[in-house]
Amino acid sequence: MMNSAVISDKKFRVTALAGGVGGAKLAAGLAACLPPSKLTVIVNIGDDFDHLGLRICPDLDTVCYALAGIANPATGWGRADESWHAYEEIVNLGGAGWFRLGDRDLATHIIRTNRLRQGEESLSMITNDLCGMWGVDLTVLPASDDPIPTQVYTEEGILQFQEYFVEKKCIPKVREFRFLGIDHARPAPGVIPAIRAADMVVICPSNPWVSIDPILAIPGISDEIRQKDVIAVSPIIAGETIKGPAAKMYRELGIVPSALAVAQHYIGLLSGFIFDMADGALENDIKNMGLCTYKTNTVMLTEHDRQKLAQEVIEFGIHMKAN
Amino acid sequence: MMNSAVISDKKFRVTALAGGVGGAKLAAGLAACLPPSKLTVIVNIGDDFDHLGLRICPDLDTVCYALAGIANPATGWGRADESWHAYEEIVNLGGAGWFRLGDRDLATHIIRTNRLRQGEESLSMITNDLCGMWGVDLTVLPASDDPIPTQVYTEEGILQFQEYFVEKKCIPKVREFRFLGIDHARPAPGVIPAIRAADMVVICPSNPWVSIDPILAIPGISDEIRQKDVIAVSPIIAGETIKGPAAKMYRELGIVPSALAVAQHYIGLLSGFIFDMADGALENDIKNMGLCTYKTNTVMLTEHDRQKLAQEVIEFGIHMKAN
Repeated sequence: MMNSAVISDKKFRVTALAGGVGGAKLAAGLAACLPPSKLTVIVNIGDDFDHLGLRICPDLDTVCYALAGIANPATGWGRADESWHAYEEIVNLGGAGWFRLGDRDLATHIIRTNRLRQGEESLSMITNDLCGMWGVDLTVLPASDDPIPTQVYTEEGILQFQEYFVEKKCIPKVREFRFLGIDHARPAPGVIPAIRAADMVVICPSNPWVSIDPILAIPGISDEIRQKDVIAVSPIIAGETIKGPAAKMYRELGIVPSALAVAQHYIGLLSGFIFDMADGALENDIKNMGLCTYKTNTVMLTEHDRQKLAQEVIEFGIHMKAN
Repeated sequence: MMNSAVISDKKFRVTALAGGVGGAKLAAGLAACLPPSKLTVIVNIGDDFDHLGLRICPDLDTVCYALAGIANPATGWGRADESWHAYEEIVNLGGAGWFRLGDRDLATHIIRTNRLRQGEESLSMITNDLCGMWGVDLTVLPASDDPIPTQVYTEEGILQFQEYFVEKKCIPKVREFRFLGIDHARPAPGVIPAIRAADMVVICPSNPWVSIDPILAIPGISDEIRQKDVIAVSPIIAGETIKGPAAKMYRELGIVPSALAVAQHYIGLLSGFIFDMADGALENDIKNMGLCTYKTNTVMLTEHDRQKLAQEVIEFGIHMKAN
């Protein structure tokens, strides 16, 4: 990973919270701006699930593949240069076809599942090891080694997250989210130290309800984050998301989706908030919440976009701390 | 599966015992000669093993793929039109690389492992179901639903079969073979009825030590076979095998490898024996064992070869019974 951007404070240390595609993009941008020893990415595990006997960790893989530069640039998830032969045959053999598994991606699931099942290694240990093999030299941590599967309460009943997200294409209207086992989940080793050591915590532009909330809900994590300078980047731009159901969820929960709503979602945690230029009209409302604000282009279409946004996030944090 | 060959007795019912590549070829030949309801193939499971958390049944898959017409014609095992992307990544991620897993083949292992692990279906039930999806309409039965892993006693110690066969390339000298748990293994449902219903049992040209013996060692199977007309096809031609370590094993066990040695291996079970024209000099010795003999080209290079050999096997059996 080349550090192409120049940051004014070389010792500045960032811990980022990330979910899927949007979070992975900003994480990759941050990785391009910071030395590996100065960046830790804590990743959502609420959407992890078992499929065909394999342990699948969609957000963790999306983040790792993005950081390793092996993500599929078209989809944002899965591997570049992917083939689908195993998946085709799985479907031919009556296996569930609603969750697509690429051939290269499958290797990750097979290796991880086998190592987890042997019972001697935790998800965080395995993730650390896989990252090493992918050439990812910063620290990537699953938020917890304890599963906390997101339960989506919908008009059609309670759905497992991937059922809701992939199988049902986010169509059922949501009412509530719960994370099974959350009361007893422990932060993965390294999570609390990474938050404590951070000069700034960045909440990536991921879904607040189902990507960031599961991380924040793990006992101990919010309390540590609250001690820190925390900047969130809004995943909502002009009332919509680039990808994913966050805006739809806000509406179904009776909240007008907006950058302001995101800032309010994280109320009590944040010191600064970054949102898109398209939402300039909301700036005063956000400032009135007592937050420092920064307005910029937050749409990350290219590698340059994500590095530029990451650099702005870091400089905003450095500037905020200095003032 | 087209029945291109014409058999003189349309009601003739065959049950074949098969191991890997050679057995799969003759089984496919038999399938081309007989209506699906008149053929059952009982397959070795001694070489089944767990690899990367997946249940792999190499002989069962080789036989099923051959019968389904989806086997790799170059290797004799694995799938035609195969790609190796998952395998490449598995190796990149530190997974054991000594056993190659093709992408399409992987689907079989994933589906089977997942269904076995759910605990409601046996290997024979799953095999039956997979065969249906592959369009294999004859009956293929694993010899047992109970694992009986072949232990290869070698000069280097005891090796699991695939360790010996694939990882060590059959180099260690063998002393003995044992099938773990054999005393308590039960024939899979359908195995004993298929033997009882057969007009002839065919022992395919598979390795006597590690492909056929594990089937015969399952309590109850030999006793039933002994009641039947049994024809074996020699896997040894002019003292060597087409593929696999059978001849090497004979030598290491102090036996000169030959068609005669194969006939002697099955002594007490056989009524007839088919061997290659190259071994014409052994005919009298084999006849002197009290066996009917049939000499032909037993090398199956083409589809035509395997159908022709299968037809000769069946006609030899029909002729033998009539006399």
